[in-house]
Amino acid sequence: MPERTYGEITGFPIGSTFNNRRELHEAGVHRPTQAGISGGKDGADSIVVSGGYEDDEDFGHVIIYTGQGGQDPDTREQIADQVLTHGNAGLARSSIEGHPVRVVRGAGGDAEHSPASGLRYDGLYRVADFWHATGRSGFRVWRFRLVADGETDPALDNDQSDGSDEPAARAQVTIQRIVRNTAVAQHVKELHRHACQICGIRIVTPAGPYAEAAHIRGLGKPHHGPDTRGNVLCLCPNHHVMFDTGAIYIESDWTVRDSLTNDVVGKLRRSPSHAIDVRQLDYHREHIAL
Amino acid sequence: MPERTYGEITGFPIGSTFNNRRELHEAGVHRPTQAGISGGKDGADSIVVSGGYEDDEDFGHVIIYTGQGGQDPDTREQIADQVLTHGNAGLARSSIEGHPVRVVRGAGGDAEHSPASGLRYDGLYRVADFWHATGRSGFRVWRFRLVADGETDPALDNDQSDGSDEPAARAQVTIQRIVRNTAVAQHVKELHRHACQICGIRIVTPAGPYAEAAHIRGLGKPHHGPDTRGNVLCLCPNHHVMFDTGAIYIESDWTVRDSLTNDVVGKLRRSPSHAIDVRQLDYHREHIAL
Repeated sequence: MPERTYGEITGFPIGSTFNNRRELHEAGVHRPTQAGISGGKDGADSIVVSGGYEDDEDFGHVIIYTGQGGQDPDTREQIADQVLTHGNAGLARSSIEGHPVRVVRGAGGDAEHSPASGLRYDGLYRVADFWHATGRSGFRVWRFRLVADGETDPALDNDQSDGSDEPAARAQVTIQRIVRNTAVAQHVKELHRHACQICGIRIVTPAGPYAEAAHIRGLGKPHHGPDTRGNVLCLCPNHHVMFDTGAIYIESDWTVRDSLTNDVVGKLRRSPSHAIDVRQLDYHREHIAL
Repeated sequence: MPERTYGEITGFPIGSTFNNRRELHEAGVHRPTQAGISGGKDGADSIVVSGGYEDDEDFGHVIIYTGQGGQDPDTREQIADQVLTHGNAGLARSSIEGHPVRVVRGAGGDAEHSPASGLRYDGLYRVADFWHATGRSGFRVWRFRLVADGETDPALDNDQSDGSDEPAARAQVTIQRIVRNTAVAQHVKELHRHACQICGIRIVTPAGPYAEAAHIRGLGKPHHGPDTRGNVLCLCPNHHVMFDTGAIYIESDWTVRDSLTNDVVGKLRRSPSHAIDVRQLDYHREHIAL
């Protein structure tokens, strides 16, 4: 498993420039010297946007990025379908895990947003969405919508609905999951192999297994829970919603109960390498459960 | 069921002022003439923040608001526990449904953020979180964290983890669901009584039933799906994740299949009053499913 560094690389702030891919590699900002995506099935940590794909679209804070593969090595024409493996699988995985992706722009890219020469590190983006389409060439390409960190996703811009059958005038979503992975959260999910500690379900997607790290006692204001493994559960989205809204709670003997009926829902699935902090369960029962 | 208007009231932009609760009522900005919360179990559409509760905290873009009930009508002292009914249930419901809440500040509130006299409409907020605590009086109070629309929730400010046992230095979350309800989404969820159209599960929380409106073909760029009932499914969060990541797809005879194995997962549950647009299912199979 490659060791990936997600996020900023110390010493290389936004705007750092590089003369060539070798310098970029040595800085650790983008490790591969050829590929546009640094990634594998564990996730992707960086990409280079340099106009290598005819289907790329660069809007600045939003980039529609084409996956890798299927190009003739000499002509760089698309000659085959792309598949969801290697870097493509990495970007999909980063999407569902919420990993930040370093974006580097090269001189060959969109004129408005790219450097005149060499390469420039342009900050962290999140993979908001991924899908496949038939590219201009007629072959399947994977596409990834990246949104600059700290910028509002334009898909959240507007929640007006006109009820007509026309495409929505502006982008809209009704629900968006913003995933911000921490080392602690990642570790707990891996310990449980992404299986829900309440029902045991393990959701498997084309981007790999999906689970959510649920803080027992919320972090930050107003709950001030600790960001420790003992304060995190690995849950499926359904049980995460139920736990966060206080629909279920967990007793000190690990019995899971329905808050509204007091019925037993089950027993918390535990792992010997994941010690849960029972004080946090007390807090959840006292403040969140009904 | 009261007819509530969520969102802005035409003719009363942010900053509109009112001399008293009667004017506020007549404007339709906050209907009740006494209660601080306009809401019931279908949701809450507005609140007045005016210092009536000793446990309120007003930080401007973030408000920690205390629920209603349990006060002596004469002394306004807290003399009993608050319960999750009436306006309190309304704010909890608005939290899980993503309804915007109009916030009005009165002269009695926090000195920094409140008007010197009368009442002022201060815009739309979302109920980010709700919980209960023992108030200064020793009785249970319900508390609601409201965040101004368009402002970043401070709980999303930082995703650094130091792994220590200390309370996180800054607020952090690992996942946040941002719900933006539309009339179309609400209607489809109500038609199916919040039961998942794939597995039939109906999640019930202390804030009422919870389901998610899933657009079959995404709205806005790049998918340009229509915001119509025919393009929306009522799903549980687990099946929503699976549908959006392409882990499952739906055939034209409503068979639901696993994208990775092609196994039959089940049959889509339909309602005679909810005509699903099969062209959108075609799009999902062609672009999202593996």
